[in-house]
Formats: sequence, C-alpha cells, structure tokens
Amino acid sequence: MVHFSIHTLQFAVEIIATFAFALSGLIASMRKRMDLVGLCIVSGVSAFGGGTLRDILLDRRPFFWVSHSAWLWVLILTCILAMFFMRERHLTFTEKAIQIPDALGLGLFTALGTQIALDLNMPAIVAALMGVMTAVFGGVLRDICCNEIPKAFNDHQPYALLAFLDAWIVISLSAMGLQEWFVLSLAASITTILRGLAIQFKWQLPHHSHIKKN
Amino acid sequence: MVHFSIHTLQFAVEIIATFAFALSGLIASMRKRMDLVGLCIVSGVSAFGGGTLRDILLDRRPFFWVSHSAWLWVLILTCILAMFFMRERHLTFTEKAIQIPDALGLGLFTALGTQIALDLNMPAIVAALMGVMTAVFGGVLRDICCNEIPKAFNDHQPYALLAFLDAWIVISLSAMGLQEWFVLSLAASITTILRGLAIQFKWQLPHHSHIKKN
Amino acid sequence: MVHFSIHTLQFAVEIIATFAFALSGLIASMRKRMDLVGLCIVSGVSAFGGGTLRDILLDRRPFFWVSHSAWLWVLILTCILAMFFMRERHLTFTEKAIQIPDALGLGLFTALGTQIALDLNMPAIVAALMGVMTAVFGGVLRDICCNEIPKAFNDHQPYALLAFLDAWIVISLSAMGLQEWFVLSLAASITTILRGLAIQFKWQLPHHSHIKKN
Repeated sequence: MVHFSIHTLQFAVEIIATFAFALSGLIASMRKRMDLVGLCIVSGVSAFGGGTLRDILLDRRPFFWVSHSAWLWVLILTCILAMFFMRERHLTFTEKAIQIPDALGLGLFTALGTQIALDLNMPAIVAALMGVMTAVFGGVLRDICCNEIPKAFNDHQPYALLAFLDAWIVISLSAMGLQEWFVLSLAASITTILRGLAIQFKWQLPHHSHIKKN
Repeated sequence: MVHFSIHTLQFAVEIIATFAFALSGLIASMRKRMDLVGLCIVSGVSAFGGGTLRDILLDRRPFFWVSHSAWLWVLILTCILAMFFMRERHLTFTEKAIQIPDALGLGLFTALGTQIALDLNMPAIVAALMGVMTAVFGGVLRDICCNEIPKAFNDHQPYALLAFLDAWIVISLSAMGLQEWFVLSLAASITTILRGLAIQFKWQLPHHSHIKKN
Repeated sequence: MVHFSIHTLQFAVEIIATFAFALSGLIASMRKRMDLVGLCIVSGVSAFGGGTLRDILLDRRPFFWVSHSAWLWVLILTCILAMFFMRERHLTFTEKAIQIPDALGLGLFTALGTQIALDLNMPAIVAALMGVMTAVFGGVLRDICCNEIPKAFNDHQPYALLAFLDAWIVISLSAMGLQEWFVLSLAASITTILRGLAIQFKWQLPHHSHIKKN
C-alpha cells in the first residue's frame, strides 16, 4: 500500500520534472530565435540528454525515451504550441515557474541515476558521477547546442554540488541496507529542499577570486 | 535483375551523398581557417557523424566507416587536395554544387536510418527520430565543432522537417507490407524532390514572430 | 625483469600524462572563470574524454575511470586545491610546465589506443584514428565545453599529425610481429621526441594561404 502510493508519487514527480527540464530547453532555444526543429531538438536534449548519456556510459538499453516513446510526441506538441502561443514576456515567467519542478527533478533524477549505477556494482564515486550526470548533463548539452558555456560550469549556483551531495546520501543509506524507496525519497526530498533554499536565499559557491587578482 | 540495378543505384547515391556531406564539412572548416587536422576531422564528422550517433544509440556495430574503412582514405585525400587547390572563390561555388547531392543524401540516409530502426523493432516515433538523426546530425556536430549554433536549428529551411516526413513515408509504407527497396526508393525520391523545390523556391518555415514582439 | 620495469615505467608515464591532460582542462576552465563544478568536469573531460570516446566507439567496458575510480578523487582534490591556491600568474607557468608530460601522453596514449584497436581486429586506418582520438579528443571536448573552436583543429601545430604518425609506427611494427612492449616504447618515444622538437623549434603545419587570397 505504502509501496503503491510511493511509486505513484515518484511517477508524478518524474513527469513534472521531465517537463520542467524540457521547458528549460524550450526557453533557451526560443531566446536564440531557433525554428521549430531547434525548439524540438534542444528541448528533447534538455529533457533526455542526461539520462541518455548515463545509459550510453553504463551500456544500458533501452533508453527512457525508447521505452516511453509517447513522451516524444508530448515534447513535439509542446514545442509546436509554444511556437504559436509563447511570447517574449512569457519566457521569464516560465523560467521562474519551472524552478520548483526543476528542483524536484534535480533531487529525484540524481537519486535514481545513482541507484542505477549502484545496482550495476559501480564504485561509489562513479555512481555519484552518474547521478550528477543524469540531472545535470541535459542542461550542459542544451547550452552547448545554444553555443554557450554551460551554465552548470560557471553560474556559481549550488546545483551540481547539491546533486553530488544527493548521490552520497543515496550511497550512504544504501550501504546501511535501508529500503530503496525510503533511500530515494529521503535523498530526493533533502536535495529538493536545499535547492529551494539555495534559490530563495541566493546561495553562491565561493568565487575563486584569486584568479582575478594577481 | 531489378534488384541488382536498384542496389547499384542505391550504392551510387550513397557514395555521392556521403561525399557531399563531407564537402559541407570541408567548406565550413576552411571558412574557419582550420588546418589540415581540422579539415579532416570536421569533414569526417559531417559525413559519418549522423550515422555513427544513430548506431551508438541503437547499439549497432560495426560503424559504416569501420566496415568501409577505405572511405577514410578518400576523405583524407580529399582534404589534402582541397588544402592545396581550393581557393576562397571556390567555396561558394562548391556550396551551390553540393545542394543536389546533399538533397539525395537527405532523402536516402533518412529512409535508410528509419528502416534500420524499424528492423530493430523500435517504436515508430523513435524510428523517425533515428532517420532524421542519420541525415541531420552530421551537420549539427559539424556546426558545434565550428563553434556555431547548428544551422539545422535556426536557418528556418525545411530540412529536418522534410527528413521527418521522409521517415513517416517509410514507416507507413513498411506497415503496408510493401517491399523494402520500393519503400526506400519512393520515400527517398519524394524527399529529394521536395528538398529541390524548397531550395528552388526558397521555402521557409513559419517564423515564430511572436517571440520578437511582445 | 625487463618486462616488470617496462610496465612500471609505462604506469608512471600514464599517471604523469593523465595529470598533465587534467591540468590543461583546469587551466582552460580557470581562464573562463568557471566555478568548482566547471573546473572538475572540464578537467575530467580533458583527462578521460579521449579514451572514453574511443571505448564507446569500440564498445569496450569498463572505462579507465571506472576500473581506476580513485583517479576521480585525485581529480576533484586537485581542482579544489587549484581553486584555493592557483592565481592568474600561475596559469601561464603551469601551461609551460605541462608541455613535456603532455608530449609523453601524446606518444603513449596514441600508441596504446592504436594497439587496443588492432587487438580488436580493426582495419589499420580505423586503428590509427582510434589512436589519434585517444590522445587528441580530450582536448577537443575541453575546448567545446569552453565554447571555443578546438585548438587541435586550428592552431597549426603538429599535434594530431604526430599522433597519426605514432599510430602508423605502431601498426607497421606490429605487422612485423615485434613484441608489444617494444613497439609501444619505440613509437611513444619517437613521438614524444618529435613533439618536443616541434615545441622547441616552433614547427608549423603549412598554412593553406590560398584560402586567404582569392
């Protein structure tokens, strides 16, 4: 019973977060005045790029978007609708609105990615890397497609670092032999809350100011 | 008999189109004043990048350029010759000259890529995506290597969209149980002709003008 | 006995060269004012990107950084230390200091990559390409992450070209049936020495000056 509702909840979070990741790509590609093709590909890369790269590295098949290919239709439809109805002034609003679902995705996808790598007997640090990659590399590939330095590398916000922390919570709790659904829920929740606090209070990574001075 | 000549024709189109894809990379890299190494790699990526990415995603081996490795020599030789004999004024001319073989490649490689994915029992939308990727992602990787936003994402020409149509023709006709050579020929021909018309009459994708106004 | 010391030597060179590759990524990311996350990822990509791409293409597992995952900790620690203690004026100095270990890496990693592909019965030109990729593509991915045209493509220095030569020495000597350790040592040494000479005497690839004139 608990199990059922947890799974339903996890599924709901996955859908909402994947959608938020896709919207981040949609916004970035619209800002670059791309056409429908660019909108679809950049949104798709943002939504599925991280998990796909993880699966290539871990040699896992099928990819999420192959076994749940209906998502690709949702993505295409969203991009078509956005092209017709989204205006400049909607972009900033949407960007704000997706911060919370994006934080949910950061927490959950990192935890899931780490768990997947642990199940394949990867070393802990590799599992952590795979978790971080799942949540962060969609955005990295999005920014490369948009010809920008990836925001994850230089916006000084604690995003990948929170993912890294999330991964280590999963690794530690799993090592204690706790149940998977409990580990995932706890790690994902902590990370989502921390990310929310980071946004609210504008936490910044320490600047390496040394590099600016001599 | 029919079979033989169709296969010969397909082979000839493949050679001509691969060469056109490679030349598009050669032109782009020469415009960026790259050296011989850049010329070779960017041309190679343009020619083989799409198919290679498709094969990585579908977990297929060997790649085209492994089983037909003589092509790599042709590529290197072409780049060396280009470095010595190609001048600025040749670039625009070459760019025009490869539009028709490039349209042949768009039609054929999309159809082939879609067919390959269908044979692996991929869902239709995934097969369509693989077809589009085969024809379009060589150019995407080329533009990323040249530090540009991929043209396929923002030049508002119907290129990837025609590939998408091509893929669906293949999927529909295959579902009807028609013979493979007939399906491929028909879909590729329609797409090549449409692409020719698009070039001739300068068809444009609808601009999402909303994003410019408020 | 000879075997033992050769293996120890090879291992030492691998460590030093991997470290040099990582430092090249560290320098590039610090120049772009990236944060700790960017430093770690770009350094990691520079160090392991070439070998990882080769292994994906050859469908080999596990990756180097999975079977030797302690390296990832070394990398993270190095980046943290660099963030605190490295100043602008150290960057140029470090860049000079890593030229020799980088040349060692160029020689050894190309030879190893070529050997790996030959052992998998790849055609000679494909093996050569895999060798070049092992040594060169870490830097290519590093520059793409930094939103630059890859230096390997347009700095007119004989780097990838020396790797290509290195690969052919390995291929030729292996075809003669010489022992693997001898082939690797000889090819790597020749390439490292040539690279040293290229740096010392500022060798340049021929400019395709045609492209500048009309």
